[in-house]
Amino acid sequence: MKEPIILMGHGSGGRLTRDLIAKTFVSRFSNSFLNKLNDAAVFVSPGDKLAFTTDSFVIDPIFFPGGNIGSLAVSGTVNDLCVSGAIPKFLSLGLILEEGFPLDQLEKISESIRAEALKANVEIVTGDTKVVKKGQCDKIFINTSGIGRVPEDRLHLGDIAAIVPGDKIIISGYLGDHAMTILAAREDLHFNDPLISDVAPLNNLAEAALTDPADIRMMRDITRGGLATVLCEICERQKFGAELDEEQIPVRQSVQSVCGMYGFDPLYLANEGKMVLIVREDKEEKVLRALQSVSQGKDARIAGKVTAAHPGLVQIKTLIGGTRVIDMLSGEMLPRIC
Amino acid sequence: MKEPIILMGHGSGGRLTRDLIAKTFVSRFSNSFLNKLNDAAVFVSPGDKLAFTTDSFVIDPIFFPGGNIGSLAVSGTVNDLCVSGAIPKFLSLGLILEEGFPLDQLEKISESIRAEALKANVEIVTGDTKVVKKGQCDKIFINTSGIGRVPEDRLHLGDIAAIVPGDKIIISGYLGDHAMTILAAREDLHFNDPLISDVAPLNNLAEAALTDPADIRMMRDITRGGLATVLCEICERQKFGAELDEEQIPVRQSVQSVCGMYGFDPLYLANEGKMVLIVREDKEEKVLRALQSVSQGKDARIAGKVTAAHPGLVQIKTLIGGTRVIDMLSGEMLPRIC
Repeated sequence: MKEPIILMGHGSGGRLTRDLIAKTFVSRFSNSFLNKLNDAAVFVSPGDKLAFTTDSFVIDPIFFPGGNIGSLAVSGTVNDLCVSGAIPKFLSLGLILEEGFPLDQLEKISESIRAEALKANVEIVTGDTKVVKKGQCDKIFINTSGIGRVPEDRLHLGDIAAIVPGDKIIISGYLGDHAMTILAAREDLHFNDPLISDVAPLNNLAEAALTDPADIRMMRDITRGGLATVLCEICERQKFGAELDEEQIPVRQSVQSVCGMYGFDPLYLANEGKMVLIVREDKEEKVLRALQSVSQGKDARIAGKVTAAHPGLVQIKTLIGGTRVIDMLSGEMLPRIC
Repeated sequence: MKEPIILMGHGSGGRLTRDLIAKTFVSRFSNSFLNKLNDAAVFVSPGDKLAFTTDSFVIDPIFFPGGNIGSLAVSGTVNDLCVSGAIPKFLSLGLILEEGFPLDQLEKISESIRAEALKANVEIVTGDTKVVKKGQCDKIFINTSGIGRVPEDRLHLGDIAAIVPGDKIIISGYLGDHAMTILAAREDLHFNDPLISDVAPLNNLAEAALTDPADIRMMRDITRGGLATVLCEICERQKFGAELDEEQIPVRQSVQSVCGMYGFDPLYLANEGKMVLIVREDKEEKVLRALQSVSQGKDARIAGKVTAAHPGLVQIKTLIGGTRVIDMLSGEMLPRIC
């Protein structure tokens, strides 16, 4: 028997599309909004203030240690909501499939989407499926957009102007696991201490950090471009700069090894379950303990501070005692990392 | 001088991504939410009841008479909101670009997105850009997700169970213009009466129809799968069927010609600026006049009715006086039509 695959007809909008949606998606993601199969999901607004975000995922390979493009698509969008102070609620799911894509892989990916949505406490309420001919896309691309509720006392998050010198910089854990897992999977590298992507929803970690929202100036998930790029974006054209302490930046031995082999700097590596927090001075120990009380945050560290000494610039105190200026990622390190 | 093109670095999340976003997108779509460049847009909820929808666009060719993938991406998502009774408010924009894609084409597409969003009275508040290597996608794919406000007196729209025999079926204008424009562009066909896509936001038409929301049972935009598929979806497994009158289904001569050449049935053709309405009996003339008062609806017709005679089935009275049963689109007619 031939293995079932995606046909052009699955993107026709007709019978095959409808059957695919019913069997593969609605059966798994079932909820009162999606099940109606209307042109849009209609619901009571989850709050007075909302956060709205979108992400497309083109990762290669689509299956990797620790996850796949489905779990990544849920976590990636959920995390953009979490670091904005939002409680994630609803996701949309837009698929672009290549003709001939094996249906069992789509089922596996859908199952991961279901599981990850459950973990992140979000519902997939609306979706869309397109199919292009063989060779017109690479296997599967996914877009997820998300809506969350922002409690009033978190609206200050994301206001860069509120950051002041003296604020502390906290990193929630080891850097570079995701990027180096993808590279190792592509290059078929193996380690005694195997690399596993950190892809995961950040809901619990964000909620722990936000016990007292006023303690937190800003949170960002550390994805494409890495910690260096996030901090450069925050500081650019501001009256403050950032100073990192290399000794306090957690990087696994295996990640360090791959970085050494390929000449990468962990500060520029993508993560899919890590965040950086700018925290009010004198609150850093409290926030650190809150983060460390969650399993995802057990390796959190205070890794630097906001300073008036070099406005607009990010600097790092290196292990050997020097100081260097860090710029945003320029060019491309690893394509299709998410 | 070499023509500027999309590089892998434009998808890195670093400096090139940031520059592209600033120069190509934020400068055009400028609004207080997008300009912050945060991980998510945060805003006051536009209403107590919301509609949320998503669509990915993979149309080929990306430029066609009457529009391009950018105007299509805005209208497509706006129209899903409009037919759900929503007043469209916010859009997200997710781009997947092929390495080497000419920057001037991206600028043109972005300009169309700006213009179409202005027409549809929506703001692009959040976005994402990914780049894949040459050959890993075809030029450009766009996802737009959208949020709209649903007034309380429109919440009954989309409740199929409320449809009753005797309700009338109204079509807002000529069928098949979009699909046949795309086919003609691909096949380089030319006509005295040139084919032009009907791609356009349906806000005004929907608002005209909804002057008294209680008159309307349901609205659907007629996209992939055509009128036949929409009506089959509505009637499937219901206690009512639909009966169309072929004489009242408006199809242009040029569309009819291409259909004849290729063996297509206009009932299955995709449109991007047309809707079908199920209207309460005795309100059909009033709604028809309201639609016809808007330029987009000047060719609207009462094209059929809901009937108890053949539950679950859609039938059409043909021009020559016969009757045939209409099924959903099976297989694929025209790939990458939207």
